[in-house]
Amino acid sequence: METLYIVKIGGNIIDDEASLTQFLSDFASIKSKKILVHGGGIIATKIAEKLQIPTQMVEGRRITDLPMLEVVTMVYGGLVNKRIVAGLQSLGTNAIGITGADGNSILSVKRPVKDVDYGFVGDVQSVNTSFLVSLLNQGITPIIAPLTHDGNGNLLNTNADTMATEVSVALSLAFKSTLLYCFELKGVLENFEDKNSVISSISKNTFASLKEKGIVSKGMIPKLENALDAVTRGVGEVVIFHASDIKNIVAGQAAGTRIHL
Amino acid sequence: METLYIVKIGGNIIDDEASLTQFLSDFASIKSKKILVHGGGIIATKIAEKLQIPTQMVEGRRITDLPMLEVVTMVYGGLVNKRIVAGLQSLGTNAIGITGADGNSILSVKRPVKDVDYGFVGDVQSVNTSFLVSLLNQGITPIIAPLTHDGNGNLLNTNADTMATEVSVALSLAFKSTLLYCFELKGVLENFEDKNSVISSISKNTFASLKEKGIVSKGMIPKLENALDAVTRGVGEVVIFHASDIKNIVAGQAAGTRIHL
Repeated sequence: METLYIVKIGGNIIDDEASLTQFLSDFASIKSKKILVHGGGIIATKIAEKLQIPTQMVEGRRITDLPMLEVVTMVYGGLVNKRIVAGLQSLGTNAIGITGADGNSILSVKRPVKDVDYGFVGDVQSVNTSFLVSLLNQGITPIIAPLTHDGNGNLLNTNADTMATEVSVALSLAFKSTLLYCFELKGVLENFEDKNSVISSISKNTFASLKEKGIVSKGMIPKLENALDAVTRGVGEVVIFHASDIKNIVAGQAAGTRIHL
Repeated sequence: METLYIVKIGGNIIDDEASLTQFLSDFASIKSKKILVHGGGIIATKIAEKLQIPTQMVEGRRITDLPMLEVVTMVYGGLVNKRIVAGLQSLGTNAIGITGADGNSILSVKRPVKDVDYGFVGDVQSVNTSFLVSLLNQGITPIIAPLTHDGNGNLLNTNADTMATEVSVALSLAFKSTLLYCFELKGVLENFEDKNSVISSISKNTFASLKEKGIVSKGMIPKLENALDAVTRGVGEVVIFHASDIKNIVAGQAAGTRIHL
């Protein structure tokens, strides 16, 4: 099967012009088929502030009421997504920016209210594999903003890590898919004080023991759970690494943390 | 050749929830292949105001400096475009929202500075016909936001009427294309005081005489020039009419002003 890279970048890269420029140049140089999934939370928070719309977070997740939904629709679907698309076009990558509503590519359901009402937040229900495959086979690179739709006319704010996982799983039926999580560190660290103490590989078993020992904690836990979920469901490989290393990662040179079964 | 409708709507419809809902329902009911080109200036002006970015207009055209380019990218490419796409998906139309940067669909050049520096404003240079035809042939309806790119990484604010014309001309090679300009009046009026005095048809010759008599003036002149440009360059028909009449227009029932050679 042909190789496909699904790359996820976060707001910290997007918000820094020099980092974004370098990243887009590296991403454009990947010759295999590829998909980019981006966040943009930092920029959404800034724009919301200028619009005097308060940002509320619960355990690192954004509460998305109607005014905040408008902000993330503008920022993720417009400002961030189109800037990336125009940048990639200038680098010879024929990019198309989409949300889950476009081409009905990713359908979700509004998260049910339990302890917390997250508002207009979606949990991914299905990925329109044939649409994405058709774009890729036309030589087009999808750039996915973290928004989905419920099929009833509502856009829903959706976690970009989860979207990258779901897209990778769906496309692993058609491609040898590798999921690349770009990150602000070189990988998962053995010792947080030593930024070079990268754990080179993590499996389901070693993850359990890393959690027990407290080596992985907080935001790293859902990220690794997402990664393990991906490999369990058919994604060939998941790598967590610093965005600036993407060329080395794709070249197969050892770097970052590789997640496997 | 198969029929294709290119429909253009302005900010006045988009900004009114009831009008937009009715319009999307009517648009979704069109069984032929179709494309929607939208504006959104009214909403961009409102959001800019909230962000304390001043709106400057010269002869009805927006000056687009860098802060305003960010606003129109957010509003046209994100807020307005994705709301329309999600709405149409719920009505059974498989829509995809694009700017000219997406799929390299519409390339433009930054308008040269003569008397006025319009800033980041694009004049359409070329339309990627094969990409749009490929979407249409997959049963996908393109929803085009009034933004293009220059191929060097810059997005450019672009007049939606002109984009609708250029797309119609380009696609008239592949389809029997009809350009439908939705408008806040029933058509071009003989007597502005009588909203029912619609001129049923205008040709190049009658346009000249209507201008001489002062019956068409101001904003109507560039709109009619655009329309005449379209029919001169191969578009089968252009109709100017009230958005609420779109079903009658498509059904071929007399309404609106038809522009022909």
